[in-house]
Amino acid sequence: MFPAMEIIQDLKVMPHWADTQRRTGRTIALVPTMGFFHSGHLSLMNHGREMADRVVVSLFVNPLQFGAGEDFEKYPRDFGRDRQLAEEAGVDILFTPRHQDLYPEDYQTYVSVERVTNGLCGVSRPVHFRGVATVVCKLFQLVKPHKAIFGLKDYQQVVTIKQMVRDLNMDLEVIGSPTVREADGLAMSSRNVYLSSEDRMAALSLSQSLSAAQKRCREGERGAGSILAEVIRILTRHPGNRIDYAKIVHPHTLKELETINPRGILALAVRVGKTRLIDNCLLEVD
Amino acid sequence: MFPAMEIIQDLKVMPHWADTQRRTGRTIALVPTMGFFHSGHLSLMNHGREMADRVVVSLFVNPLQFGAGEDFEKYPRDFGRDRQLAEEAGVDILFTPRHQDLYPEDYQTYVSVERVTNGLCGVSRPVHFRGVATVVCKLFQLVKPHKAIFGLKDYQQVVTIKQMVRDLNMDLEVIGSPTVREADGLAMSSRNVYLSSEDRMAALSLSQSLSAAQKRCREGERGAGSILAEVIRILTRHPGNRIDYAKIVHPHTLKELETINPRGILALAVRVGKTRLIDNCLLEVD
Repeated sequence: MFPAMEIIQDLKVMPHWADTQRRTGRTIALVPTMGFFHSGHLSLMNHGREMADRVVVSLFVNPLQFGAGEDFEKYPRDFGRDRQLAEEAGVDILFTPRHQDLYPEDYQTYVSVERVTNGLCGVSRPVHFRGVATVVCKLFQLVKPHKAIFGLKDYQQVVTIKQMVRDLNMDLEVIGSPTVREADGLAMSSRNVYLSSEDRMAALSLSQSLSAAQKRCREGERGAGSILAEVIRILTRHPGNRIDYAKIVHPHTLKELETINPRGILALAVRVGKTRLIDNCLLEVD
Repeated sequence: MFPAMEIIQDLKVMPHWADTQRRTGRTIALVPTMGFFHSGHLSLMNHGREMADRVVVSLFVNPLQFGAGEDFEKYPRDFGRDRQLAEEAGVDILFTPRHQDLYPEDYQTYVSVERVTNGLCGVSRPVHFRGVATVVCKLFQLVKPHKAIFGLKDYQQVVTIKQMVRDLNMDLEVIGSPTVREADGLAMSSRNVYLSSEDRMAALSLSQSLSAAQKRCREGERGAGSILAEVIRILTRHPGNRIDYAKIVHPHTLKELETINPRGILALAVRVGKTRLIDNCLLEVD
């Protein structure tokens, strides 16, 4: 059906492959992932195939973006399954760099994006976005993509990468791809496997509160405070939910908005049982 | 004699030119500069012409690498002369980005190289190397060079850029090019124009102390303390000299050495009158 997917692990082979594609006029889309693929990842890969001649999926669980006490060690991994899913999705290259090659002992360089990483997840995860920006910068140098595709579920991540690409004059386009949801609305996430069946029910309150906010907005409500009050009411109906944040922010600067005019992002982070989940949606008034 | 040099200012034109060169199999050498060219710069340009098919010289006085109270405002500039010298040196592209394009109002991304920037000039110029690494990262994305050539006079800068390139997996080679000196030994620097005739005499003590140290080393001295004592003696013969630092460090890690075995870098920063000068040399025992 598709030509066989190639696995590249070597850091010298990857840019050499990219140069060959570019010299022959082929465009490259990169989908950076931490593996344990779900439909959201597959949607990004399909998006990549539509956007470029070649699709590279990188698979690397990046320790730099996990804080102390976060879930780096137990982050779910299943390489055999990921490999098969990527191949079935028509991916050309599965890029699986090794930790000791990306971060050798004398490693000491970091990319920091400042203002857009200060709020939202940046508050409770202070080193997270530095880790994300750094590894994505590295992947961009190695894969030399024309397009890079990220899921909009991690909205602040998309904004951060776009800002880095613009600020550092990287010659590529960052594309945010729509969040894929379960039939009942739960945003796809590799971390959903952590949820107990009770958590799974409570987790629905995130997408439910987003829908309620969108409905209020469509009905003409522009006040962030009023919309957030309803969001918080829905989230806290489940006693096991602890809200990390629920904010309405500017789509590009991520500064908090008091009034939606004409667009805002409603962004949530909620601890459901022991699992921290995030979700977001666009709010738009006519 | 040479085909006419082209001046590129536009940030979209530069990577497009680079892509065209790369697609046609031509290699690119970049010489990043802050202008006000002297023989040292011309030597870097010649080095570039030997190393690659095309030479790009960037000219940008980067405010990010100047600290408060440093000489950003009065840094010497002479674009007409620089343009002529670059063209005579056989440069293909003089890249002259504008400040507002490289650092637009919402600019917020920085590249930090940590350990190698802590000592030497990093002590008295705490934001300097972050500014250097950031602008050089930007220039590398814009010019897409195969080789980048820096003067070894700024030894810590060369080490910092090499570390950044390795850590961020940039697909290019950083080359340190030998320091060019006046007939009497003074290392070429755009900042030499700040020196009064009295300073100019006192400034000779830097290269004189380096020569004395090399002589001691050739004679078998391996102790850093003993060599530095002589260096300091020579530098302080001029009462207007104030030593910022005089250290012998490891050539790659820049950690201070007690014993030279088999190589060290003797690095100096001295305020001569009102002008801060730096110089360095390799010390090597047989």
